Amino acid sequence: MARFKLTLAYDGAPFDGWQSQPAANAVQDHLEAALAAVAGVRLRAHGAGRTDAGVHALGQVAHFDAPGESRMDAAAWLRALNTKLPRALRVVASEAAPPDFHARFSAVAKTYRYEIDTAPVPHPLRRDRAWQRPSPPIDAALLREACALVVGRHDFAAFAANRRDGKDPATERTIAAAAVDRPGAERLAVTLTGDGFLYKMVRLLVGGAVRVAEGRAPLSWIQQLLDNPGGGKCQYCAPAAGLYLVEVDYGGARVTG
Amino acid sequence: MARFKLTLAYDGAPFDGWQSQPAANAVQDHLEAALAAVAGVRLRAHGAGRTDAGVHALGQVAHFDAPGESRMDAAAWLRALNTKLPRALRVVASEAAPPDFHARFSAVAKTYRYEIDTAPVPHPLRRDRAWQRPSPPIDAALLREACALVVGRHDFAAFAANRRDGKDPATERTIAAAAVDRPGAERLAVTLTGDGFLYKMVRLLVGGAVRVAEGRAPLSWIQQLLDNPGGGKCQYCAPAAGLYLVEVDYGGARVTG
Repeated sequence: MARFKLTLAYDGAPFDGWQSQPAANAVQDHLEAALAAVAGVRLRAHGAGRTDAGVHALGQVAHFDAPGESRMDAAAWLRALNTKLPRALRVVASEAAPPDFHARFSAVAKTYRYEIDTAPVPHPLRRDRAWQRPSPPIDAALLREACALVVGRHDFAAFAANRRDGKDPATERTIAAAAVDRPGAERLAVTLTGDGFLYKMVRLLVGGAVRVAEGRAPLSWIQQLLDNPGGGKCQYCAPAAGLYLVEVDYGGARVTG
Repeated sequence: MARFKLTLAYDGAPFDGWQSQPAANAVQDHLEAALAAVAGVRLRAHGAGRTDAGVHALGQVAHFDAPGESRMDAAAWLRALNTKLPRALRVVASEAAPPDFHARFSAVAKTYRYEIDTAPVPHPLRRDRAWQRPSPPIDAALLREACALVVGRHDFAAFAANRRDGKDPATERTIAAAAVDRPGAERLAVTLTGDGFLYKMVRLLVGGAVRVAEGRAPLSWIQQLLDNPGGGKCQYCAPAAGLYLVEVDYGGARVTG
């Protein structure tokens, strides 16, 4: 048995999120179909984490175990899988991994980026790639202050949607960095790095921070939600189209087994 | 009668090019349907030029004449049309224009940009937005030299596809500027400004220049095609997905009537 680590990029628009679905149009479904087409047997792909429908990935990570008889190396898997995958999904890197490597459990940090466009007329070429919000005006300095509040170890229960399966009972997480930049005219982006994120947490944090940056809630409202996690929920969830899973970090340890 | 100048942006991927087609999925069809929905009568939209299926626009221009009884100003047309248009097509600016303004015949220059991605694995988020060409390697300095050759007044017959309708008998055009830049890692872009472009001319010029920059044809081949326009055709047409109509220039004269 040989385990491989795959780094994946995808356009979230045409897919039903990461996790396998009955309609078989999830990213995991397409990846597993490509693995089966190449290997000749059904193989399970394990992702670093779920992304919702519409959420993009620049560096999602998944691992799988090749059949014992396979002689393919990491580069051969990359080439073969990319001939089978839809163009909206690509394997951008492939490495041999030790048998105890796990895409989800070995991860030590993840980085997400959230893109907001404020152009008065939402641009057609950005329609599925950003939160297009021409108004009200967003104060970038306030957005930065709101994002700075979430850095550190907090109970983020107020910034978590309930999963239907009732998982995620532990809601403490550490956000190591939160940065706001302007990637272009009439564009804002929030980049968050943390040891883990609850269900819809990035979108709820951005939705809350934008609410503050629009002057419709005070900074103290974010602070209260962090200080009293059982006291209420952030109801403002930023749309999926603006969210990018940028990178999953495995602590700099050599993955190659 | 009141004439209006519209500046349009669109994602070329979902449309059958600019010019009205029987399937009614051309950009012009969608614009005219929106005009009819707003005005209550059929109105003709005149574009600055055709873009092929898959070609994008950041600043296509069209004009139309509002019905005599209409009281809508330019800003009202922009707002109303954008409520009727598909999200892949937007009116980004709208101005009142004098009665002798014509989107095509008043234009003095157009600027096109052509984007080439050289990443080894073509990125999903760029799949309909660039010529994704991982190999062979493109020499940026050679690309620049090849593009420099086309600046000036030339007979570009060798860089024109034949239209089925047999138009475009005059094949002399002036290219005022040709620039190559690197908008990002593993990306190249060619920007061309000229007084007019023949059918598929930008894509044939880029296709030829890339052929040279890949070391598969000498610079002198481009020069020969320019010097002997009847002597042969450039057979290398770069794909539509990489092409953007950036701007149509009307000479800086005030358009507002």
